[in-house]
Amino acid sequence: MCLCVIERRTKMPAIQYSLAAGRLRRSEIRELLKLTRMSDVISFAGGLPDPSIFPYQAVKEAAIRAIDERGPLALQYSPTEGEPFLREQLAAFMQRQGESVAADDIFEVASSQQALDLIGKVLIDPHDPIVVELPSYIGALQAFTSYNPEYRGIRMDYNGVIPEELERTVAALCSSGRKPKFVYLIPDFQNPSGITLSLQRRKKVLEIASRFDLLLIEDSPYRELRFAGEMLPSLYSMDTERRVLYVKTFSKIFCPGFRIGWVMGPADLVEKLVMAKQGTDLCSSAFTSFVAAYFIESGHLEKQIALGKERYLRKSQLMLQALQKYMPEVEGLSWSKPEGGVFLWVTLPEYMDTEEMIKEAAESKVIFVVGKAFHCDGSGGNTMRLNFSYPTEEQIVEGIKRLARLIGKFVRHESAHVRPQA
Amino acid sequence: MCLCVIERRTKMPAIQYSLAAGRLRRSEIRELLKLTRMSDVISFAGGLPDPSIFPYQAVKEAAIRAIDERGPLALQYSPTEGEPFLREQLAAFMQRQGESVAADDIFEVASSQQALDLIGKVLIDPHDPIVVELPSYIGALQAFTSYNPEYRGIRMDYNGVIPEELERTVAALCSSGRKPKFVYLIPDFQNPSGITLSLQRRKKVLEIASRFDLLLIEDSPYRELRFAGEMLPSLYSMDTERRVLYVKTFSKIFCPGFRIGWVMGPADLVEKLVMAKQGTDLCSSAFTSFVAAYFIESGHLEKQIALGKERYLRKSQLMLQALQKYMPEVEGLSWSKPEGGVFLWVTLPEYMDTEEMIKEAAESKVIFVVGKAFHCDGSGGNTMRLNFSYPTEEQIVEGIKRLARLIGKFVRHESAHVRPQA
Repeated sequence: MCLCVIERRTKMPAIQYSLAAGRLRRSEIRELLKLTRMSDVISFAGGLPDPSIFPYQAVKEAAIRAIDERGPLALQYSPTEGEPFLREQLAAFMQRQGESVAADDIFEVASSQQALDLIGKVLIDPHDPIVVELPSYIGALQAFTSYNPEYRGIRMDYNGVIPEELERTVAALCSSGRKPKFVYLIPDFQNPSGITLSLQRRKKVLEIASRFDLLLIEDSPYRELRFAGEMLPSLYSMDTERRVLYVKTFSKIFCPGFRIGWVMGPADLVEKLVMAKQGTDLCSSAFTSFVAAYFIESGHLEKQIALGKERYLRKSQLMLQALQKYMPEVEGLSWSKPEGGVFLWVTLPEYMDTEEMIKEAAESKVIFVVGKAFHCDGSGGNTMRLNFSYPTEEQIVEGIKRLARLIGKFVRHESAHVRPQA
Repeated sequence: MCLCVIERRTKMPAIQYSLAAGRLRRSEIRELLKLTRMSDVISFAGGLPDPSIFPYQAVKEAAIRAIDERGPLALQYSPTEGEPFLREQLAAFMQRQGESVAADDIFEVASSQQALDLIGKVLIDPHDPIVVELPSYIGALQAFTSYNPEYRGIRMDYNGVIPEELERTVAALCSSGRKPKFVYLIPDFQNPSGITLSLQRRKKVLEIASRFDLLLIEDSPYRELRFAGEMLPSLYSMDTERRVLYVKTFSKIFCPGFRIGWVMGPADLVEKLVMAKQGTDLCSSAFTSFVAAYFIESGHLEKQIALGKERYLRKSQLMLQALQKYMPEVEGLSWSKPEGGVFLWVTLPEYMDTEEMIKEAAESKVIFVVGKAFHCDGSGGNTMRLNFSYPTEEQIVEGIKRLARLIGKFVRHESAHVRPQA
């Protein structure tokens, strides 16, 4: 047996991978999530919706209808552009959310992550400059990186990306003849920061985009999950020049298990994305498309969103209260106060490094994602992302206690006033 | 209004696409399929399974179980490697089919088409040589082409790819220091030709692969749909050196509407594919994975395959009889006699060009796919692919009549003996 194994090993082919394969990294989040399978670890690491509010009964009814009423189509290949019935329902849903969209404008994708990969495929050649927020969604960086762009990161404050920095960066690129292929933004309850781009800055960003003739990618997984403050118009709806590609998904507002996203924007670009999808997976799942379409048609999507808002408001408030109560009072320690979405962003004093903390955090049975992972320029060492949608209410309080205790240990006492633990 | 539209047009951004986008082509098959929406056109063009044998009741029962018994997991994100329950069921199914596979060996993908895209991503750098059959699956060519390889095509006869030609091509490449990244083969009831690689040639191909240290991609969507002759071992099962990546899918043996495929092979390569999938769509649909897993667990997959074999045997025989009866008797006209799968391949006299025929064919209300589309070297002008799984029995007979009449018109009469039409 042993010899046989060795024989097989010595004969295994010497596979030569592509340069793109050399740029692949295991997702840090997905690796961290493995830790959460140990049941006593409290995870603020993932971005998973709360399964206790999943609409099981409504999905079951929709699945039965999909088979009974549309069986031959639901089990067959569907058009690459997406199942027409779902595109109609998505357009109707978007219209009810105040967006002006027709069914024909909608391109169904198998997750918004797929949209990001297709965007990379049709737009990025090696060393092309692209612009992203600092920090930005780790999955977008992963998707784009496989096409080897040159990143330019734009810093954010608690009102979102800073327009003056965007302008300066774009102007510098353009003046050297290297207009960025696109600017990738998550304006609402950003992943990872939970920060929302203010209305004034939205106008400013669109004005800059117009002046420099930029393509904007607006990734919008959380927009409908606003549980406080006033809904702001999407960049897509404010744009009068068709320069915004709008990327949506069911993963946070409904459930991730269907892998359904959708995209709207410049017709020529969408056409290219459709062609790219043909070679990538031919088409999305007709079955989940029909189930989702019936789910929307029956009015369940709005109910589900209302439920999510209620639940995530409560959980975010709990987390904010716990942070307020347990975190050491120390200069340079702050966190975002999200008005929606599923994430909250903690900034620690400059001298702290969350990468150094993560191992000890896991030993203390609480995990988060280190902020550096979201920064295309390797900055953000003193930041971390916390998710409040997935952990239970008890876990939120207990987890923040553990985290606060841990951070307390890293405080340099000469400059800090550590409050005694409760 | 009019001015406004013009204003928008002039302001639309000047999008600069990637080189990969420039290589994208609309799938000829998907374009042709649009013609089939005209109800009186008989289509031999697609590769769609017969929806009249889809297992509606069993899928419905499996969907209900997925929600009732695994709801929280079925609507959530799943591991990138695939849902463990499905991987177990797939391994058990493969074992019953005579393959030696463990659940951990299986990487679930969102269609075998996705596997082909991921293979391109982790293996192909621009201008890398890869080897494919002449003809080969159009979707594979589409997936690989976006990574810009240099194709080497190996001719086939009715026993599959010709080993001597494979050896010559590989030897020439290797002697110039350009070992092909992989050899892509569809050994069973090949798409498009319907031809099966003989056992003797399978041995020969593996021997060549071993000698030149090649990676083989075995795409196997139809293998279980053998309705005549004896099942041949897969290259994967014959391989003792772990140099075969085996690509499977539900699309033909169960239904395409779930977008589920799976992959087994060299562990290091599979690991790279998993990492590439993370950036591409994060994970497959947990929901369809659970539905499929319950479907298999309940013993329905084997029943479905039995039904498919019975139906496609009957349809293929009808098509062969109709070809025999209606095709003009002319030198150089022949067709494959598939022992399984869903396609049949027609070779016309050298002087005929199916691309010239296709428009007239559509006018005669019958369509096929021109053979050239499957040839990486632009050859195959006198060939066409016919699908027998999707059209009804009546359509098969009537469609072949129409096709035979059309081909008859292209026969050069000095060399032909045209049989009077029935």
